[in-house]
Amino acid sequence: MDKPPAPPYYLDDLKPGDRFVTDSADITATDIKAFAEKFDPQPFHTDEEAAASSFFGGLAASGWHTAALSMQLLVTSGLPLAGGIIGHGGEITWPRPTRPGDRLHVEITVLEVTPSRSRPDRGTATIENLTRTADGHVVQRFVAKLMLPRRP
Amino acid sequence: MDKPPAPPYYLDDLKPGDRFVTDSADITATDIKAFAEKFDPQPFHTDEEAAASSFFGGLAASGWHTAALSMQLLVTSGLPLAGGIIGHGGEITWPRPTRPGDRLHVEITVLEVTPSRSRPDRGTATIENLTRTADGHVVQRFVAKLMLPRRP
Repeated sequence: MDKPPAPPYYLDDLKPGDRFVTDSADITATDIKAFAEKFDPQPFHTDEEAAASSFFGGLAASGWHTAALSMQLLVTSGLPLAGGIIGHGGEITWPRPTRPGDRLHVEITVLEVTPSRSRPDRGTATIENLTRTADGHVVQRFVAKLMLPRRP
Repeated sequence: MDKPPAPPYYLDDLKPGDRFVTDSADITATDIKAFAEKFDPQPFHTDEEAAASSFFGGLAASGWHTAALSMQLLVTSGLPLAGGIIGHGGEITWPRPTRPGDRLHVEITVLEVTPSRSRPDRGTATIENLTRTADGHVVQRFVAKLMLPRRP
């Protein structure tokens, strides 16, 4: 049997179907309001009372807060990639809001691995990141295209 | 001639081709490092010296920082939407990194307006948001699907 490669992972070490899971992080009402006051100052992200009568029916984290926290989990405990986690971008959806008290983790699945035709030293990995609450609800799906170096 | 509708805008007030521009915001090395230390602690986002020898060749903002700052511009000076700016998600790309000293603004173009079939009180607007530097470089493209109420 092949010995799995040791991290950090190069493009050559990943294959479709590979899975990784991050640690968990808690999000509080204080965190939600602090992020929103700086970057997404809308009443349903900054004020419980206003949020209660909004579309969200209660305080909800900015989608960008969910995205930033998911990135923090990926970087600190997710996928140790050679050269770091460098994204071209991707498709992001927020099927339901992140709420105060949620404990989030990210489940990572490699979908596609494509060596570059023009640059033999690198390639692109397409990776699905599902951010889930402790009870399994998906609060974010991000299908990212990452730039990775080839194993030297 | 039709008088343009007064904000806040409902789904009925938007049509493909409508354009809006936000105010500008400056981003500093201090901002970049503070955001990254919290949400994207990779050396090319937190340390000038390490960044100089990285793929980026110098300090670069986390893509999520560019996204969060773009949202701040949209919320505070972009598009006054009835009910707020509520996104299902969208497709995000970062064609080039945001750098210390960049002054960013967002250019918004309405691409598509679709009333909901099942919910007569709402619909979806697809909106392209280009985040540009003062000299016109695009650092982020986000094509967002927003949920909007119909005009009552």
